[in-house]
Amino acid sequence: MKVKSFAAPAADKPLEYYEFERREPNETDVEFAVLYCGVCHSDLHTARGDWGEIEYPCVPGHEIVGVVTRVGSAVTGFKPGDRVGVGCMVGSCGECSACKKGLENYCEKETIWTYSSKDLVDGTDTKGGYSTVMVAPEHFVLHIPASLDMAHAAPLLCAGITTYSPLRHWKVGPGMKVGVIGLGGLGHMGVKYAVSMGADVYVITSSPEKAETALSYGAKGVIVSTSETDMQNAAFMFDMLLDTIPRAHDLAPYLKLLNVQGSIVLVGPIEPMPSYHSGDLIHGQRSIAGSGIGGVQETQEMLDYSAEHGILPEIDIIAIQDINEAWDSLVGKQMAKRYVIDMKRSFPDK
Amino acid sequence: MKVKSFAAPAADKPLEYYEFERREPNETDVEFAVLYCGVCHSDLHTARGDWGEIEYPCVPGHEIVGVVTRVGSAVTGFKPGDRVGVGCMVGSCGECSACKKGLENYCEKETIWTYSSKDLVDGTDTKGGYSTVMVAPEHFVLHIPASLDMAHAAPLLCAGITTYSPLRHWKVGPGMKVGVIGLGGLGHMGVKYAVSMGADVYVITSSPEKAETALSYGAKGVIVSTSETDMQNAAFMFDMLLDTIPRAHDLAPYLKLLNVQGSIVLVGPIEPMPSYHSGDLIHGQRSIAGSGIGGVQETQEMLDYSAEHGILPEIDIIAIQDINEAWDSLVGKQMAKRYVIDMKRSFPDK
Repeated sequence: MKVKSFAAPAADKPLEYYEFERREPNETDVEFAVLYCGVCHSDLHTARGDWGEIEYPCVPGHEIVGVVTRVGSAVTGFKPGDRVGVGCMVGSCGECSACKKGLENYCEKETIWTYSSKDLVDGTDTKGGYSTVMVAPEHFVLHIPASLDMAHAAPLLCAGITTYSPLRHWKVGPGMKVGVIGLGGLGHMGVKYAVSMGADVYVITSSPEKAETALSYGAKGVIVSTSETDMQNAAFMFDMLLDTIPRAHDLAPYLKLLNVQGSIVLVGPIEPMPSYHSGDLIHGQRSIAGSGIGGVQETQEMLDYSAEHGILPEIDIIAIQDINEAWDSLVGKQMAKRYVIDMKRSFPDK
Repeated sequence: MKVKSFAAPAADKPLEYYEFERREPNETDVEFAVLYCGVCHSDLHTARGDWGEIEYPCVPGHEIVGVVTRVGSAVTGFKPGDRVGVGCMVGSCGECSACKKGLENYCEKETIWTYSSKDLVDGTDTKGGYSTVMVAPEHFVLHIPASLDMAHAAPLLCAGITTYSPLRHWKVGPGMKVGVIGLGGLGHMGVKYAVSMGADVYVITSSPEKAETALSYGAKGVIVSTSETDMQNAAFMFDMLLDTIPRAHDLAPYLKLLNVQGSIVLVGPIEPMPSYHSGDLIHGQRSIAGSGIGGVQETQEMLDYSAEHGILPEIDIIAIQDINEAWDSLVGKQMAKRYVIDMKRSFPDK
């Protein structure tokens, strides 16, 4: 079928209107009309070739929600009219040890990403949610709980799960002190989840003006990373640090904030990181870890949890025609909110 | 009292005979005649100034066992004639959160090391077990179980606890796959402990000739780190890697051997480590961690465990007069054994 979208025609070109042919759903697929799609910093990284060469045009978007229009004959979990979402992935090998544990995001063979990956069905370049219609295998489609507003639900599918999963894996709960480094699209979700799980949460930021926002999400305090006093006072303070800085950076100042047996978990940068001193890990049995989105099952759990606890991202709704301006505003600073594309407003004649 | 020892007179000088005055035991101290002292790679690093400036002469040695000769009036756990040991530390603040958890080795203020640290009682430079008599606070003195041979018990106090503690912290047991990187003084203990805990253990080494030795300790196999085939076949294989390489090295080839949610734990190098790619951590929720010896309580547990399970290091007993030759032979290669100084043979006239 013909689908309307916005696509990057090349690494160094702005996004522009693009029509393409999306494959028809096969018997295990779900097709849905896209209502909203969140805008993620990794859309820029991918489309601009920061993470390796890709095919063009590139249709980004992996925080996608909408309403089911058609389902394949073998689909049992969804029917037309259902509120659904697709996050960062639409395929995996299904057979490796990671897939069998429900960790399709860590597939040992290859996770098929929602855009700029090779579709498992027809081998074409996958195309994401900056478009009017999505088709994805049932296994990778999520239910959006009835009480979640659809526009707010979209960013949960990447920003939400990316912060929820490590907080769960590192068993965040009452009695734990958690520091969230950076208060952008990921960081503000991390604060909300960690607070809801009962931890004492602090925001570590180079922007003291974000203090009020941080406190409004339930943070107990703000540590200004450029203040030597603040950083010294926070030595050995945290059981876990959730590091959302989206580019390579020196971890040394943050490792000193970890309590014994604490972990700093990187969810932002995917690139070579600077040298570190192993003594900062050995003294205190500390860890540098990473975490990337979450498995399908955990993503559904996160959606249900977010509905139950009323945890929603801060959003700015835009039309897709404003996407280049939105992307430009993401570079260099972290906003404690997410842009969400309203597809109906973008293509009212559809 | 006058004590005989061997000391490094300077960073670039060989060890030589040295007599010094050790302080008398105070009311909370235990004094013991040193029978054996293990030789640790970190003795060289410290005495040669690799880890920062120290005072000279330096009397190394932190794998020390002997028989109690005197105890202070407030000592309740030891009496003359008891078989005892002292490991890497003889003091800590006792008040920080780490000390209160029994992790004196990770004291937030300062762990007082057995040599080349500042004694908490008289402020002098601490002097280690390459000497005939030790004096240490009761809190840092361990009981050597009756069934443990004294010469073999010595290396447990550093090489033993350094490998035992991380295996416990990362919950090694049946059903887990553990890779031990390097088969030297630390590595061979790591293999023995991990096997005894029920894990499937493999040795990862650049020396294929060590395979037979590794298998004799119960390892299931050997992965040759210079073989691309071996390393590719081991992708995603290990829940935990115990990395005993004693110098800075690139972790990239090893990170790929980690299973999802696996950890590589550094116990060897204490220095700046090369860059790493955060994608290797993010894909698989993997960790780079460190671990350094263990607390007093865990060290006693390790001694009791070693006695119960018959876990002993491979040792070569030497006289202290052979120490410079022994040190030279440690540099550049890893022997799957530990040198142990026999103090009676060294100073027969004492």
